[in-house]
Amino acid sequence: MKELAVELGDRSYPIFIGENLISATELFSEVLQSRQVLIVTNTTIAPLYLTQLSNTLARYNPQSFVIEDGESYKNIEVMNSIITYLLEQRFGRDACLIALGGGVVGDITGFTAACYQRGINYIQVPTTLLSQVDSSVGGKTAVNHVMGKNMIGAFHQPVAVFSDNNVLVSLPDRELKAGLAEVIKYGLIRDESFFVWLENNIEMLLNRDGASLQYAIEQSCRNKAVIVAEDETEKGKRAILNFGHTFGHALETGLNYKDILHGEAVALGMLMAADLSHRSGWLSENSLQRICSILEKSGLPTSLPVQILNEDIRELMSVDKKARDGQLHLVVLKGIGSAEVSNQYDEKLLSETLMHFSSGRDQA
Amino acid sequence: MKELAVELGDRSYPIFIGENLISATELFSEVLQSRQVLIVTNTTIAPLYLTQLSNTLARYNPQSFVIEDGESYKNIEVMNSIITYLLEQRFGRDACLIALGGGVVGDITGFTAACYQRGINYIQVPTTLLSQVDSSVGGKTAVNHVMGKNMIGAFHQPVAVFSDNNVLVSLPDRELKAGLAEVIKYGLIRDESFFVWLENNIEMLLNRDGASLQYAIEQSCRNKAVIVAEDETEKGKRAILNFGHTFGHALETGLNYKDILHGEAVALGMLMAADLSHRSGWLSENSLQRICSILEKSGLPTSLPVQILNEDIRELMSVDKKARDGQLHLVVLKGIGSAEVSNQYDEKLLSETLMHFSSGRDQA
Repeated sequence: MKELAVELGDRSYPIFIGENLISATELFSEVLQSRQVLIVTNTTIAPLYLTQLSNTLARYNPQSFVIEDGESYKNIEVMNSIITYLLEQRFGRDACLIALGGGVVGDITGFTAACYQRGINYIQVPTTLLSQVDSSVGGKTAVNHVMGKNMIGAFHQPVAVFSDNNVLVSLPDRELKAGLAEVIKYGLIRDESFFVWLENNIEMLLNRDGASLQYAIEQSCRNKAVIVAEDETEKGKRAILNFGHTFGHALETGLNYKDILHGEAVALGMLMAADLSHRSGWLSENSLQRICSILEKSGLPTSLPVQILNEDIRELMSVDKKARDGQLHLVVLKGIGSAEVSNQYDEKLLSETLMHFSSGRDQA
Repeated sequence: MKELAVELGDRSYPIFIGENLISATELFSEVLQSRQVLIVTNTTIAPLYLTQLSNTLARYNPQSFVIEDGESYKNIEVMNSIITYLLEQRFGRDACLIALGGGVVGDITGFTAACYQRGINYIQVPTTLLSQVDSSVGGKTAVNHVMGKNMIGAFHQPVAVFSDNNVLVSLPDRELKAGLAEVIKYGLIRDESFFVWLENNIEMLLNRDGASLQYAIEQSCRNKAVIVAEDETEKGKRAILNFGHTFGHALETGLNYKDILHGEAVALGMLMAADLSHRSGWLSENSLQRICSILEKSGLPTSLPVQILNEDIRELMSVDKKARDGQLHLVVLKGIGSAEVSNQYDEKLLSETLMHFSSGRDQA
């Protein structure tokens, strides 16, 4: 097992990465001091791992709350239903929630923990590759608003993250690939050598080779932990983690969160951001091709699954919360392994990028 | 004008107390850097001060959002309607909300600011004595859940508090008195000399003498700022600010927030906590009488306005979030000017206190 640390002073916490962590009774005992424990999970994950985790935590006599599976349930009504349950069951301020699931479960559980009685503890037990390498680390929690994703939320750090490699066995292929999009992101934004490693090992990852997956998760979390430690509440540098996300969120919203997974939207968004970076003269043709190539090899989309008007994407992008001070800031690449936030791009080039992708033509 | 500081490192902020602050254009310019400003107020305050404040902030071209007046509107649906407006109007992460109103407006506006896009700035412009001396300072924000008050919230500090004495002119007598309950609280929990000053000046305050009110507000905020600076997120000492509130919240919930103002519930709650402290041998008969006397002189209730069963109060108290780890902690007095959090009281004496008040007999 590997243990990484997110260094945030009195809000520091460990990320555990390894085998059979859902059964690691002793490890949970080290970080879980609460007398009252509620496991929040969804209808897909509950039959797979809820009993196992409940047994692991038997000495806490944990309760559970099962929500429907899907991004559309990451809303304020479902959050309120969890809070109602906590109140009915008399959970106090020293209670601890445990998010057992992917990004949706993690985000809504984390935000519920952030708000319940002005903040209680929670632990992340991510069950998808995507949430293991991204959303479970860094304390970003939120629910969606009908007008935009993650518009209601908080920065609220977990007390620990348990990243169990074994759960990836049950992960559908499409979700594994969607998770690889965020893994590739770390290579692109700040770790060129990791990107090269990914180019050489993408087949191993797709074949779910245990050691390769563990290394990819570890490197991803390591990169993320460093960025989060530098800029917990995204006043500056942390924004590079949103690489591909402003485009991606617009696509997700435009598609009403249907037909596209978050990681797929991010993959396409990264390619769009790379395309804009290339058109702006910041990224070579060769680098753009390498990015397109690794996404294709990962089985990730490089063109829109259904048609969206480029005007609609532009409109949706400007609602995105990265639109600071009325001016749309985007994360662009200045080479592989080097990202920065910029509003110094030409709107005309952005239009060209949007035209290129919204017309549905193939990137290559 | 007086300026106090709440010392919280990079979250420190000023409290301005003085005349005509709603018109203080320059002072607002010092603390308000946002390009987008939304004033949140209610149907009672809007006709009185919204135009005045909007004119003061003219260079920001502020927008406004008016909510219904009353505790029952401090809920997640109203918060969501503010968020919808912010999204429709394309408010970004650098926007600033301004809470113009009493505790309800301050709490819901602060919580909306805490959650909108994971946190934006807000300024408190409290228009009641109660909110000037209590809820506007310290960053506690929340909305109510049907099962309990302030159950969904966050610690989110404002960037400034503008406490304008002039607005107290329009405050109904009953609300002025309710505000005095929280003023008296500061004397009781940590400032005996202020309590003596209050005993000597209660008539001046009831007659709305400007200098006396300014002094009372200043001393109250000074006491609160010290406690908040020591314990921002209520891990320990800050809990003494809840003196009277566990009883008070139970009464408010039991009465469905009707027939009793928050300050009135706190007044009665303080008397109940003092009664328990006296029965426990921690507070002299004379001190209890002085407390009862100043509340009576302030025109605050010393008995329940309508009957509530003592079992119901006990039940409602145990839902209160101060019920840590299953054990009900209460703030008790060990003399005037000395409060502490305790679970070392006898349940039988608590029952006697509840019996005494729920039976509706007069305290004296």
